[in-house]
Amino acid sequence: MLDEAMRLAMASSELVRGTTSPNPPVGAVVLDARGEVVGVGATRPPGGPHAEVVALAEAGDRARGGTAVVTLEPCSHHGRTPPCTEALLAAGVARVRYAVSDPNPKASGGGALLRAAGVDAEGGLLATEVERGPLRAWLHFARTGRPHVTWKYAATLDGRVAAADGTSRWISSEESRAEVHVLRTRIDAIMVGTGTVRADDPRLTARGIPAARQPLRVVVGEGDLPPGAKVFDDEAETVRVRTHDPDEVLAELVARGVVDVLLEGGPTLVGAFVAAGRVDRVLLYTAPKLLGAGMVALGDAGVATITDAVGLVVEEVSMCGPDVRISAVPAVLNG
Amino acid sequence: MLDEAMRLAMASSELVRGTTSPNPPVGAVVLDARGEVVGVGATRPPGGPHAEVVALAEAGDRARGGTAVVTLEPCSHHGRTPPCTEALLAAGVARVRYAVSDPNPKASGGGALLRAAGVDAEGGLLATEVERGPLRAWLHFARTGRPHVTWKYAATLDGRVAAADGTSRWISSEESRAEVHVLRTRIDAIMVGTGTVRADDPRLTARGIPAARQPLRVVVGEGDLPPGAKVFDDEAETVRVRTHDPDEVLAELVARGVVDVLLEGGPTLVGAFVAAGRVDRVLLYTAPKLLGAGMVALGDAGVATITDAVGLVVEEVSMCGPDVRISAVPAVLNG
Ligand SMILES: NC(=O)c1ccc[n+]([C@@H]2O[C@H](COP(=O)([O-])OP(=O)(O)OC[C@H]3O[C@@H](n4cnc5c(N)ncnc54)[C@H](OP(=O)(O)O)[C@@H]3O)[C@@H](O)[C@H]2O)c1
Ligand SMILES: NC(=O)c1ccc[n+]([C@@H]2O[C@H](COP(=O)([O-])OP(=O)(O)OC[C@H]3O[C@@H](n4cnc5c(N)ncnc54)[C@H](OP(=O)(O)O)[C@@H]3O)[C@@H](O)[C@H]2O)c1
Repeated sequence: MLDEAMRLAMASSELVRGTTSPNPPVGAVVLDARGEVVGVGATRPPGGPHAEVVALAEAGDRARGGTAVVTLEPCSHHGRTPPCTEALLAAGVARVRYAVSDPNPKASGGGALLRAAGVDAEGGLLATEVERGPLRAWLHFARTGRPHVTWKYAATLDGRVAAADGTSRWISSEESRAEVHVLRTRIDAIMVGTGTVRADDPRLTARGIPAARQPLRVVVGEGDLPPGAKVFDDEAETVRVRTHDPDEVLAELVARGVVDVLLEGGPTLVGAFVAAGRVDRVLLYTAPKLLGAGMVALGDAGVATITDAVGLVVEEVSMCGPDVRISAVPAVLNG
Repeated sequence: MLDEAMRLAMASSELVRGTTSPNPPVGAVVLDARGEVVGVGATRPPGGPHAEVVALAEAGDRARGGTAVVTLEPCSHHGRTPPCTEALLAAGVARVRYAVSDPNPKASGGGALLRAAGVDAEGGLLATEVERGPLRAWLHFARTGRPHVTWKYAATLDGRVAAADGTSRWISSEESRAEVHVLRTRIDAIMVGTGTVRADDPRLTARGIPAARQPLRVVVGEGDLPPGAKVFDDEAETVRVRTHDPDEVLAELVARGVVDVLLEGGPTLVGAFVAAGRVDRVLLYTAPKLLGAGMVALGDAGVATITDAVGLVVEEVSMCGPDVRISAVPAVLNG
């Protein structure tokens, strides 16, 4: 029952990903004393209530003597909103289960505070799933101070991202493309280099699904862009970062409240991020096609010999329509 | 019970793969009247007995009134050995179940002949598994007259098969390499171009496992090779095919009784085979590593634009140690 409630809390938090940064996309579920779901909530945009407060509001009196299930340890400090621990105590819940402890020393201690107040509070429920899932980017940000970078690309089985004549529509299947558009609605920013804008004039928006919002578009590089480039249209905000240094790019993004970034190429920019150890996840859609010529996904990443290859660990392999989706993370976590 | 017996027959046939060509690697299991396994057999090398005969010999009298389970329809013609249908009738089995009908008109009709003789004989048991598994190469050969070609390669997540300095030891994991050595014991021939011999001086043998035999080594290309090249050592036979035409290569292999070939590169030779539609399966070991420079697996395959990409279908994805193993076959079967 608690596992199920946590999965519901996770699902609820997935829906608000991309709208909460720099706050974490948290999900919460309130069960009444008999274990019935009486409230579900997720973090509202910055300044709005936290997940627990939303779920408790729905539960009302039925929360008394019940259980709150939350993906992140309830906060115990006054930020822009009052602490969630207070709301939980005021609602009279008897039990609190959370997945992940808050790594932020300012916000942590919520579990201990609740226990001191007589609540049966405990962390660790489905912790790994939450850490790798909805809270991954935010936890990375909380630990390192840098946004989480997912390099996403689509390649053929022989490693090409475009054919000999430069065409790349479409390498991957409709299913994979649709999934990427969903992904774009759940991250904060989407990033390319000036080379990609000059070559492809991409829109870099989430399309084909009702998107409550569009990610911030980020173009990295010093050169000028055609003023009529689609990234300058009104569909979403665009920021130019005139540097070649990945850490300067990430610092600029932090200043804008970005926690979760999708890196969409091209080979030069990705090479710089890989070389700097600033790719936190690789998400590859492999299409079962062969080209035998054309561009490859990754440019110079400072690796000259096989023993210096950047080591990753596959964390998930699955099919996406006809394509193979591979998710891999650095073998050694970047500090 | 019959399914289980067929799986045992398949397993038994896997053990003789690479030793039966140009005959099929068939597996057979004999159950007594109560359903107990009383005989297991697989095709002996050419000139030796067929699987059914081996299994019946083990079963002896216990076959009477029992069931024979065979991966391929029992043959009904006199080849180098007497027909298996005769052996089954002489043994007095009451029932015969086989997976795949014999596509060879000369050998087919075994099922009908058995039925005419009063045996309850029927095909189709686990047919798809057998077709895609132990009998795949032979069925392809029986249908097309050409050996079955599996292009096997190991690449990084970014599609490289070697680093910038040419090093490629090791791209893939120990587990993947061990698996490839097992694979090499189960095929008839292993094929590379002269370029690979000149660059890498590979041994092209199955190592690290007790191999009853070594595959035939095939080097394709017109140029001369260093006389001291390892492919000329005594560990296995080597044949040179001095042509650039894949079909000439395959015809030469047929003449040598080869049914199942492993194509192990390099990019030029593989490109020619892909362009000619002569790759029947792609077996890719993707290592979770990034290089950002270095050689790619596939050279010019005559594809200029994305809509002309060679289309495949993924038939299996699985992990091999830390690597992702992808098996894909042509979307449109080559005639
Ligand atoms: N199929 C796919 O998945 C995919 C995705 C994206 C792109 N692409 C392809 O990639 C091609 C463009 O390749 P690209 O490599 O030029 O694109 P890019 O990496 O997006 O842009 C490269 C440019 O970014 C700037 N830059 C930023 N950081 C840099 C650094 N650390 N070092 C050097 N330059 C840096 C430089 O421009 P400044 O001179 O302005 O500084 C550089 O020329 C296009 O053909 C596009 O179709 C394919
Ligand atoms: N990591 C891996 O999985 C892997 C596997 C194999 C090779 N490799 C690498 O591949 C590199 C060698 O590449 P490669 O492309 O030269 O090797 P290759 O394809 O094995 O050999 C190419 C040679 O084969 C002959 N050839 C046969 N059919 C041909 C055709 N239809 N068209 C043109 N030539 C044909 C030509 O030589 P003639 O002039 O003699 O006719 C040609 O130069 C090496 O560096 C090796 O390390 C890597």
